[in-house]
Formats: sequence, structure tokens, C-alpha cells
Amino acid sequence: MTTEDDGAIRLRLDLAYDGTGFSGWAVQPGRRTVQGVLEEALSRVLRLPETAQLTVAGRTDAGVHATGQVAHLDVPATAGPPDTDLVLRSLAGVLPPDVRVHRLAPAPPGFDARFSALWRRYRYRVGDSPAAADPLRRLDTLWYPRSLSVDRMNAAAALLLGEHDFAAFCRRREGATTVRRLLRLDWTRDSTGLAEATVVADAFCHNMVRALVGALLAVGEGRREPGWPRQVLIAAVRDGAVHVAPAHGLCLAEVCYPPAAELAARAVETRRVRS
Amino acid sequence: MTTEDDGAIRLRLDLAYDGTGFSGWAVQPGRRTVQGVLEEALSRVLRLPETAQLTVAGRTDAGVHATGQVAHLDVPATAGPPDTDLVLRSLAGVLPPDVRVHRLAPAPPGFDARFSALWRRYRYRVGDSPAAADPLRRLDTLWYPRSLSVDRMNAAAALLLGEHDFAAFCRRREGATTVRRLLRLDWTRDSTGLAEATVVADAFCHNMVRALVGALLAVGEGRREPGWPRQVLIAAVRDGAVHVAPAHGLCLAEVCYPPAAELAARAVETRRVRS
Repeated sequence: MTTEDDGAIRLRLDLAYDGTGFSGWAVQPGRRTVQGVLEEALSRVLRLPETAQLTVAGRTDAGVHATGQVAHLDVPATAGPPDTDLVLRSLAGVLPPDVRVHRLAPAPPGFDARFSALWRRYRYRVGDSPAAADPLRRLDTLWYPRSLSVDRMNAAAALLLGEHDFAAFCRRREGATTVRRLLRLDWTRDSTGLAEATVVADAFCHNMVRALVGALLAVGEGRREPGWPRQVLIAAVRDGAVHVAPAHGLCLAEVCYPPAAELAARAVETRRVRS
Repeated sequence: MTTEDDGAIRLRLDLAYDGTGFSGWAVQPGRRTVQGVLEEALSRVLRLPETAQLTVAGRTDAGVHATGQVAHLDVPATAGPPDTDLVLRSLAGVLPPDVRVHRLAPAPPGFDARFSALWRRYRYRVGDSPAAADPLRRLDTLWYPRSLSVDRMNAAAALLLGEHDFAAFCRRREGATTVRRLLRLDWTRDSTGLAEATVVADAFCHNMVRALVGALLAVGEGRREPGWPRQVLIAAVRDGAVHVAPAHGLCLAEVCYPPAAELAARAVETRRVRS
């Protein structure tokens, strides 16, 4: 069945991956990337005339995981809307076991996986006690050889909340603004003794979560005082004393969008603020 | 410091491993096994004159994991009791990342990791929906391509509880008794949609958990009726229609022992019943 409508249908994908075997999200020539593997599988399953082009909510770095990543792609409307259940089953067969698509559905009007997002939530997991080391979680847990005080890390984290220029925690100025709104940053211990940070912001500049976590770990082990990360923030220049925490403890857990009626306006607003 | 006492000190080890890279617990020539790796590391860290000999609560098969395994070893008393905190830290440095020792302590009198145990608890994890597939858990989760009814599996499981001859679910008669007391067998779904079986018995014969799970999966997908596993049990002969579930979904989660005063008596009783 074909139609005369040569517009496009936008699909939303919800997906998860183990970042261990990937050189990050973004396509790079000669490297195995999440985007590359997904675009190839989607093109095949959807029988697209050209390679699918994905737009993603969080461009994760090499080794970073995702349980709640969101992306979109536009497919030609000429063949009518795809049978999304069938596509989902086919993708499960075609994709390697370290990437799974959880949901695939036509996106509401105005939806943009990157620019419509209200906030992103990451988690960072650290084990600091031999008694809490679970070998089955070593792919996504940083092993830290010194004991960490969650109370000290939370005291330091509370001083970073709100809208600030996070240039001090970004790998480089990227031409665009480094002002972000940090909505949540706190640590808890789970029932097995692992320490886990929850980090929520409207968006993150490059390396920001891992630099924030690295600064807090220095506080947690007692090498820095709880006021130090706030001082680094205020200085607003990249500080060599902040160690970027390793990638494998980090996981993109959730991306939140506004109600359907506000998607388009949110995308317009985000594009304006970021440039 | 040396003493004239040439007796032995028994140490209890609590440990965890990712079974993916091991040919099971028990030492086999030319194979990488959990026991082999641990005995080598312990001998080195404790500077034992001969290779340490471990006795374990659950001799897990190739590919099976453990979060709550228990073992014991006897070390010469001549050097006095080892500094267990120091040994634990040294082991963390010497052992590969897929085995972790959580606790190491002198065992109470009469303790035997295998024969003093009251019961073992295993879990078996299955994902049957694309929406629940977490690539970070694929090492210890079976991916099942058909939908499972937890209610049907629980109805079938309830008929298997109690003391029975489980010969039908054991790989072979091993000369010893195949009578076991099945204390718990039920399925739940976790918050991410994964189905997880909890299986508790005083002890398990070879392949028993995976054969029970395999029979219940056939019921869960609708290929067999809930009364079928009970019929297999009563027939008391190994049934080719029971498929042994894959190893990687299985994990030894806990081993329970009686209070210290009853350890020796429990070991004597277990040895009597099993032979």
C-alpha cells in the first residue's frame, strides 16, 4: 500500500544498552557505536531506502550505559505507519544482546527526543566495601578502594543545586552555553551496601555528570571538604583537581518529556536557550 | 608467633561470583573453576605450605552464579589465627573481578559448610517481554521468547512442595538418596517486569533446580498443564520431556545454618540421611 503523501512519520524509541562494548552513542567511522548498530538494524527491519537517522536524548560517552534512553527517527510515510509490534519483535532478533529496544511507537506531534526533553536522570553506582562487591554488577559499578561517607557527599552536593554556569565541570566550552539547571544530586546506599548517586538536570554538558561525581568522591573519602565542589563551581573554569569518574559506573536512567500539547513549544524554547 | 598447637583453624568464607567465565565450582584439570581460582588465591595470601582445600555448600555447575555461596577451609594453627581483615583486603587484590570474597572469619566449633547447612536458596531470573530486557542483566537472566503466566507456574509449583523423591528432576541417580525437602518454590515479577523464581530446599541433587524451572516454564507458556510437573514427580523417573533450563539464569543466593550450638549435630544428621 502506498499513498501520495510524501511526508514522514516520526517514531519514538525507548531503549537500553550495556555500554561496555561500544565507543559511545554517536557514530564514528570504524568504531562500534550504539547509534551505528541501531541505525543499521532499523534500516534493515524497516526496509528503509537510506540509512535511518536517529536523534537521541543523551549522547552517552564510551562505556556509559543506558536503561532509559530515548531517540526518534523519521520514516517515509509512503508505506503507511509500520506495524510497531512486529518491528519490535524483529529488532529483538536482529540487534546484538547488548542493545534492546523496549518500545517503538509513533511520536506525538512536535516531539523531538533531544529538544523536547524536560530533564534527564542519570545514576552512578559505586562499591566501596569488599562485603558489597557483586561480581554480576561489575560492568556497571565502580569499585572504589576507599570508604565513602554518603553524608559528606550529600552535604557537598546540596550546595550545587539550581541554575549555574557549570563550565568548571564541562570538558570544554563548546561554543554554546554551559548554563544548566541541576534539579537533583544525592547519594543513597542500597540494601547490598552499594552507594548510588541520582543526578537530574534539564540537560548536561559534556562530562558533567562524571566530573560532578568525581568531585564528590574526593569529598566522600575525606580528601576534600564538602565546600570544595561549590568553590570549583563558582570559579567557573575547568579545574584539574576534579577527576572525571570512570564511565562504567554511569547509566542514563530516564528522560522526561512534557505533556503532548507542550512538546513543540518546549523544543522551540530549548533550541533558543541552548544557542 | 608460633604455638605448639598443631591442630587446625577452620575458616568460613562468604563469597560471590559471576559464573559466566567458569566451568563451574569444582576443580577440573585444565579448566578455569571457581574452586581452583579461590584455592590458588587463598594459598598465596595465607602462605599455606600446600594448596588450600575448600569445602562448599553448593557445588554449582558451569555458568551458574552465586551471590551467597559459603565454603570452609582448614588452615594450620601453628601460625596463630590469621588477620582476617588483612586477608580479605589481600584477596580482593589477588582475585579476578568475577569472584569476590565478602567475609572471612573463624568458623564456630562443629561448622561444616556443606553438611551443617539447613537449607539453600536459589533464584532463577527470566525475561519474557522485550520491554523488560535489560542488557546489563543479560549475564544472569534467561531471555524467553514466549510470554509466561506466573499464576500458572505458581499453581504447578505448589504441588511440588514437601519431602519427596526428586529422582525425576535429577540428572542421574548418584548412588545416594534423591529424597529432598522442597521448602519453597514460587514466582514473582519484579518492578522491571522480570519473572523470578525462588527455590528453597534442604539440599538439591544434581540439576534439580534447573529441571524444576524447566518444567514450570513449559507450564508458564501454556505447553503443559499445571498438574504435569506433579505427575512427573510421582513417576520418579527422569522424564525426557523435562527440559533443563539454561545455567545462566540460576544463582545461589543464600545458605542457612542453625545456631552455633546445633552445627555439629546438624552435620552428623545430614551425613546419616544422605548415605
